[in-house]
Amino acid sequence: MLEKVILKKKRIDDYAPIIGQEKVANLKEAAKPIQGLRVLHVNATAHGGGVAELLNSTIPLLNDLGLQAEWGLLCKEEPFFEVTKNFHNALQGKYYDLTPLAEKIYLKRNRLCAKMLENDYDLIVIHDPQPAALRHFHGRGNAKWIWRCHIDTSRPNMDIWNFIKPFIEEYDAMVFTMKEFVPRDIKTPCLYTIAPAIDPFTSKNIDLDVAVCKTIVAEFGINLRRPLLLQVSRFDPWKDPLGVLEVYRQVKEKVDDAQLAYIGSMADDDPEGWHIYNQVKDRVKGDSDIFLYTNLSGVHAFEVNCFQRVADVVIQKSIREGFGLVVSEALWKEAAVVAGNVGGIPLQINDGVNGLLAQNNEEFVDKVLYFLTNIKKSHEMGKRGHEYVREHFLVPRLVQEEIKLYRDLVHSSVV
Amino acid sequence: MLEKVILKKKRIDDYAPIIGQEKVANLKEAAKPIQGLRVLHVNATAHGGGVAELLNSTIPLLNDLGLQAEWGLLCKEEPFFEVTKNFHNALQGKYYDLTPLAEKIYLKRNRLCAKMLENDYDLIVIHDPQPAALRHFHGRGNAKWIWRCHIDTSRPNMDIWNFIKPFIEEYDAMVFTMKEFVPRDIKTPCLYTIAPAIDPFTSKNIDLDVAVCKTIVAEFGINLRRPLLLQVSRFDPWKDPLGVLEVYRQVKEKVDDAQLAYIGSMADDDPEGWHIYNQVKDRVKGDSDIFLYTNLSGVHAFEVNCFQRVADVVIQKSIREGFGLVVSEALWKEAAVVAGNVGGIPLQINDGVNGLLAQNNEEFVDKVLYFLTNIKKSHEMGKRGHEYVREHFLVPRLVQEEIKLYRDLVHSSVV
Repeated sequence: MLEKVILKKKRIDDYAPIIGQEKVANLKEAAKPIQGLRVLHVNATAHGGGVAELLNSTIPLLNDLGLQAEWGLLCKEEPFFEVTKNFHNALQGKYYDLTPLAEKIYLKRNRLCAKMLENDYDLIVIHDPQPAALRHFHGRGNAKWIWRCHIDTSRPNMDIWNFIKPFIEEYDAMVFTMKEFVPRDIKTPCLYTIAPAIDPFTSKNIDLDVAVCKTIVAEFGINLRRPLLLQVSRFDPWKDPLGVLEVYRQVKEKVDDAQLAYIGSMADDDPEGWHIYNQVKDRVKGDSDIFLYTNLSGVHAFEVNCFQRVADVVIQKSIREGFGLVVSEALWKEAAVVAGNVGGIPLQINDGVNGLLAQNNEEFVDKVLYFLTNIKKSHEMGKRGHEYVREHFLVPRLVQEEIKLYRDLVHSSVV
Repeated sequence: MLEKVILKKKRIDDYAPIIGQEKVANLKEAAKPIQGLRVLHVNATAHGGGVAELLNSTIPLLNDLGLQAEWGLLCKEEPFFEVTKNFHNALQGKYYDLTPLAEKIYLKRNRLCAKMLENDYDLIVIHDPQPAALRHFHGRGNAKWIWRCHIDTSRPNMDIWNFIKPFIEEYDAMVFTMKEFVPRDIKTPCLYTIAPAIDPFTSKNIDLDVAVCKTIVAEFGINLRRPLLLQVSRFDPWKDPLGVLEVYRQVKEKVDDAQLAYIGSMADDDPEGWHIYNQVKDRVKGDSDIFLYTNLSGVHAFEVNCFQRVADVVIQKSIREGFGLVVSEALWKEAAVVAGNVGGIPLQINDGVNGLLAQNNEEFVDKVLYFLTNIKKSHEMGKRGHEYVREHFLVPRLVQEEIKLYRDLVHSSVV
């Protein structure tokens, strides 16, 4: 048997005060025809990363709606995770030299886990490349199989793509986050795109008293009487941390008491992240108005929540982006957001309505200054951002789309 | 120059709404004669651990009170930290085989850092064993030197104690957390005991809306309509996690819907912690009312704060304890606390007044059941616990005692 994650209880009714009674009722109605459906989700890990966060919210809600949804894990093993991390990066376009040993490690783990997978499900949803070959080694059995891809596979490294492709083409359906992420040469009977979502009841997104947020942000050294710019993202070249510093510097020429906070989470096993962190740290030396924080300095989900609620402008200076759900997290807190016009960001920001999009450093500088000097506009857009996220990027909408997908698939004639 | 920690700004006036205007005024008055005093604190690390937490609060407050306080760090180096971690454990009584190589690594690092230490201070406060030989290698210079010991050195491993003792006996004063922690054979011109304290403005202790706490705790899988027992501490034999399970099981025979949450923070480099974690995990298998959380499952300071405010009974089943400041953290949240009568715990709990002390499993079971069945009493004691912490264990009291110490020392004739 695959290791199962013990599920929390969640009630869709708890979301009614936020999304309205009608949407909750629609969701219950939609789930009715597939109540009792036995669904298994499989991914690599129960903790850490956006996929685990999503499953933590959606699987309990599927159960509350009457499905029998479970969450299984690929058994942990060091070399396998080493290999699939490389696969992950390569599928997003990074250079990678696929070796026979890596292939062997990948196949061995998938073959083993496929044997452990029970035959008790109507639907099996496999997340991301790590367990993608489970379908192949297990055979279809009585289930419909869905491959759910959370990464940007629009420009994959072709070696690894050609290795993975035959496995995922065996699935009955594929789901990508955005249509732009779908590789051109993929063949599948059913292709879906479903955007991710945030959960308003987690430490990162829960509604907080602004006085609490101010106290916490002040505890981390920020002067609340002065303007605060914020970027929350990993120390990763695609998030352009050095570009953020440059934008801050140019803003500071006009607004000389501006402060910048950059919050990034660091993993022990991410040497590239540490390298960039140190680059950034070197550049900020001597400027005591720039604050770098990581999980190691005690900045976790709750503190991010506080910072997003207190910042005068939230920047997301991505050069390339997956969906960029951190933008929705900031909008949900009514932040004034200036973000790069890449990846899933323009799906979340309607330029000039609920936030601002920028193409280059100059535009970022101009738009940050615009928000700093037009407080009323920044509040207005922040409020609209909150409403936009309520409408489009909360977790019940994601569950609604998953249920539609399950219904389509269960009732389709694909065999 | 020693690496310095960039200090936050903190204002003692912010504490007036909590401790009262009079105490703040007294503190300012006490600090007046030593305004401008140049104080350097040195410890091993800026993040992680109770000492860093204390310095994060006290040093900014010393500055706000007019002193010139700085925070210097021992430069990081792997083998040195390996060695001093062993020293730390051995000073608390653990078996340790002191080798000439370990001595050499320790002395080399202290000699190097002593050279980097400027001669600009009136007072130098050295925290814990890691930098204890700085005084020896630097010479007194123009400063008075204080060794501040945060660990329980009442029953040290004698090899390491005899190695460290000559270095610390060169100091002008020593500060221990409790008089019970002072080794019998120590000679010092000035001996102080100062208890630690908590800061009400951190993520761990800030006042939170109970609805927020309930939402977060429910997100982690707890059923709020059923009783919740909680212990927060490392997976360490001295915290008796297996004893906690036993107490919970006996309580559950009487109160069959009881739940237990055990929150422990884990370090990658703590194999013993992982070993005990796995032991505990094995024992709880099959009981879905026991919840084990770590920082790796997203439980950090804020979440601990929420759990402490929601739990029906907080247990601290320590067999041996340093000061056990987690008890004050729980009392501050008006929790009903049942704790072992060891270490600094009886300084914090006045049995039957602001919490309950217990000596063995049976007493723990009885007293947990007492709180679960006497809700009014548990609220009363919780409120008194909050008041007791306000009076004795908040950070301004700690600063007050430090200032007294500095004044005594600066004006004494010790040379």
